[in-house]
Amino acid sequence: MEQNTATKPIRCKAAVSKVAGQPLEMEEVEVAPPRAHEVGIRILCTSLCHTDVTFWRMKDFPGQHPIILGHEAAGVVESVGEHVHEVAVGDTVVPVFSAQCGDCPDCLSDRSNICSGLPAGPGMPRDGTTRFSFAATGEPIHNFIGVSSFTEYTVVDVSNVVRIGPGVPPEKACLLSCGVSTGVGAAWKVAAVEPGSSVAVFGLGVVGLAVAQGCRMRGAKQIIGVDLNPEKRDIGKRLGITDFINPNDTGEKAVSEVVKEMTGGGADYCFECIGSTSAMAEAFQSSRKGWGKTIVLGVSSGGAPMSIPPHDILWGRSVVGSLFGGLKPKTDIPILAQKYLDEELELDEFVTHEMGFHDINAAFELLTQGKCLRCILWMDGARENGSVGVENGRACKAKA
Amino acid sequence: MEQNTATKPIRCKAAVSKVAGQPLEMEEVEVAPPRAHEVGIRILCTSLCHTDVTFWRMKDFPGQHPIILGHEAAGVVESVGEHVHEVAVGDTVVPVFSAQCGDCPDCLSDRSNICSGLPAGPGMPRDGTTRFSFAATGEPIHNFIGVSSFTEYTVVDVSNVVRIGPGVPPEKACLLSCGVSTGVGAAWKVAAVEPGSSVAVFGLGVVGLAVAQGCRMRGAKQIIGVDLNPEKRDIGKRLGITDFINPNDTGEKAVSEVVKEMTGGGADYCFECIGSTSAMAEAFQSSRKGWGKTIVLGVSSGGAPMSIPPHDILWGRSVVGSLFGGLKPKTDIPILAQKYLDEELELDEFVTHEMGFHDINAAFELLTQGKCLRCILWMDGARENGSVGVENGRACKAKA
Repeated sequence: MEQNTATKPIRCKAAVSKVAGQPLEMEEVEVAPPRAHEVGIRILCTSLCHTDVTFWRMKDFPGQHPIILGHEAAGVVESVGEHVHEVAVGDTVVPVFSAQCGDCPDCLSDRSNICSGLPAGPGMPRDGTTRFSFAATGEPIHNFIGVSSFTEYTVVDVSNVVRIGPGVPPEKACLLSCGVSTGVGAAWKVAAVEPGSSVAVFGLGVVGLAVAQGCRMRGAKQIIGVDLNPEKRDIGKRLGITDFINPNDTGEKAVSEVVKEMTGGGADYCFECIGSTSAMAEAFQSSRKGWGKTIVLGVSSGGAPMSIPPHDILWGRSVVGSLFGGLKPKTDIPILAQKYLDEELELDEFVTHEMGFHDINAAFELLTQGKCLRCILWMDGARENGSVGVENGRACKAKA
Repeated sequence: MEQNTATKPIRCKAAVSKVAGQPLEMEEVEVAPPRAHEVGIRILCTSLCHTDVTFWRMKDFPGQHPIILGHEAAGVVESVGEHVHEVAVGDTVVPVFSAQCGDCPDCLSDRSNICSGLPAGPGMPRDGTTRFSFAATGEPIHNFIGVSSFTEYTVVDVSNVVRIGPGVPPEKACLLSCGVSTGVGAAWKVAAVEPGSSVAVFGLGVVGLAVAQGCRMRGAKQIIGVDLNPEKRDIGKRLGITDFINPNDTGEKAVSEVVKEMTGGGADYCFECIGSTSAMAEAFQSSRKGWGKTIVLGVSSGGAPMSIPPHDILWGRSVVGSLFGGLKPKTDIPILAQKYLDEELELDEFVTHEMGFHDINAAFELLTQGKCLRCILWMDGARENGSVGVENGRACKAKA
C-alpha cells in the first residue's frame, strides 16, 4: 500500500530572504504537503554554508527572491508522498542538494556522482515548483536547490533524502549534507589520496579543512594549508594540516614555488577550495610533474575562466572538478556517519557556534565576517528536548 | 668487462638545418664516439614529424641552428660507450626523445612516464652537449632533443634507446618512436578507454589517427573524428573513426553541440591532437558531465592558455595532459611492436610516402602542405639491402 501520510499544509516559521543581501525576515509560511516521491521533514537544526550567502547576495537568476535558503540540515520525517518507500515517518534524515535517483546512467556508474535523472537546479527536482507560500497572502516563496532548510518544515524529493542511522547527533549529521562531506569526499573519491602523499590545500574554510581531514584519514604524509588568515594555522593543525603557508608572508615567491620547495618538486594533490580562478592556476602550478592532480572544489562566482598553460599540462598533470566531493549521497553519507561514530572522522571541530533559529541573521554576519566555520541553528525545542538522541531511526527524547 | 666499442669519430652525411625555415643542407659531418651510457646508432630510416617542422621554423631558443633535426627513426647499434649493457652492437633499436632511466621516482612509479632522472631538453641528456660537428670546419652542430635522426649515424643516451625484437620492419618500427605511439598510448594509458565508450578526436593527423586506432583497439563504440580537411574522412574510417565532423559544415552549431547530439550528452573521452587552445576548449565542452575526460596531446606553439570555465569543471569533468601518450618507452614500445606483429595494431596506413634520405626537403614540403601522414626517408642501401629483415637482434640481409 502506498504511503500518503499528509494531505494538509503545515503552517510554521521560516527565515525568508526577501531582497538580495538584506536581513532575512522570520515569516509565517505555509508548507504544502509532499507530492509523489516527496518527503515532508521537520527540521531539527540547520547550518549555514557559504553557498547560502552567495545566493542570498545574488540579485539576478539563479538568484531568486523571496526565497527560503539553507541546504545543510538534519530533521525527522513528518510525512511522505505517494511512492515513497525508502523512508518512513519518524526517520532521521539529512537532505542533500545533489540527488541520487538510482536509475540514471550516472547513478548506475561508479564513475559519476552527478545524477542526470534529477539534475540539481532551482525548485523541486521533478517539476521546478515550490511548496512554500506566505501564510498571509498565499504568494509563493522560491525553493532553494531542492532543499530549503531555513524553515521549521520543508519538503524534499526522496532522491535527495538520506536516512541517518541512530547515534549521530543532528548537529553533526547536518554537517554531512554539504561542506564537510564535499571536502572529505574529494580526498577520498576524487583524488583517492594514497598513504604517504603530499597535499596542498588552498583555502581553509570548512571544505578545505575537511579536505585536510580526508587526506589525513587516507594517510597523507604532508598536508600543506594555504590561507591568508593566520588564525587558520591552529584550527588547520587540529584537523590534519602539517604545514601552513600564508601568501602574505612569502615575499617575492609565488605560493607554488614555496609548495615546490616544501615537497621537493610539487604536491601530489592540490585542492582549490576558494572558488578563485587565480588560486586554481596557483594550485595547478603547485602540482608535481608526472602525476600531479589539481582538484577544483571552489564554486567561482565570477565569470573568469581557469587558465592552464597547455605546455604545463603536457607534463602529466591533470585537473578535475567535482560537486559534493564525488560522493553519491545515499551510498556514501552513511559511510561517513559511521566513520564519525567510529571516531575516525572528526566533526566536532567544525561546529564553532550554535544558536537559536531566530538568531539566523547573526549567523550570516559571523560567516560573512569570516568569524565562524559552521554555526548550527537550532529549531525551538529541538536541542533541549533531546532530539540529539536518536534510536532505531526514530527521534526520541531519552538522552535529554 | 665494460664495452667501449668505438673510439674514433665517424664521418657521414647529415641533413643540417642551418637557418630557421630554410631548406636543409646535406653536409659531411663528424659524429663523435659514444661517451659513457651512450649508444652509437647507424640509422636505417627516419620519418618526419610535425615537431621537427615546428623546431625547424623556430628562430629563437628552444629553436637552435645549425641543428640536426629528426626524432623518429630505426637503426642498428654501431658502437656503445662505457656502462652500456642493455644493448649490443648489431641490435635493432629505436631512439625516443623521452627517457626511461629506470631509477628516478617517476620511472619507479606506475603513475608517471616522465623520467625526472634525465628530463628531455636540448642536447645529450646527461650533459647537454652534442656529438656532431661539421667535418670541414669542426664547428659544432646542435643535437635535437637527445636524438637527431636526420643523419646516417647518431649517438643517443641508452636511457632513450629501445631495442626492437626481430620481425618488425624498420619503416614500421620508426613510427613507434613518437607520433603513432603517442596517440595509441593516450587511448591506452592516459584515458584507459573502456569497451563501449564514445570518443571525440580533434585533429586527424598521425597522432589523432593513432588515437582512433588505440580507441578501436580498446573497444570504443563511437569514435568521432573532427578535422577541417574533408580528405581525412576516408583515412579516418580505415583507422577506426565511425563518424566525421568537419567544423566548416556545422553551420551555426559549435562542434561541441554536434558531438553532444551524436553521443547523447557528450563524449566519454575527448582528445585534442592539434595544439590549439580553442580546440582544447571545444574538446572540453564536448565531454560528458559526470565523467567526461579531455586528454591534451597537442603541443601548442602559441602562448595562449587553455581556458576552462570553473563552473563546467565542477560537473565531474577532467582534463589531463601527457607527453608520449603516457607510455614508458622501454616498457611499452616492445608491447606495441608485438601488437603490430600480432596484427592488432595497424601501422601500414600511416606510411603514405617513402623516399631516399637525400630527398628530405621534398618530405618537408609534403608535410608542411598537409599532403602526407608519415614520409619514410631511407638511408642509402638500407632499404635495398634488406635491413628490413631482422633476426636475433642483428641486422641481416637474408630477406632481400
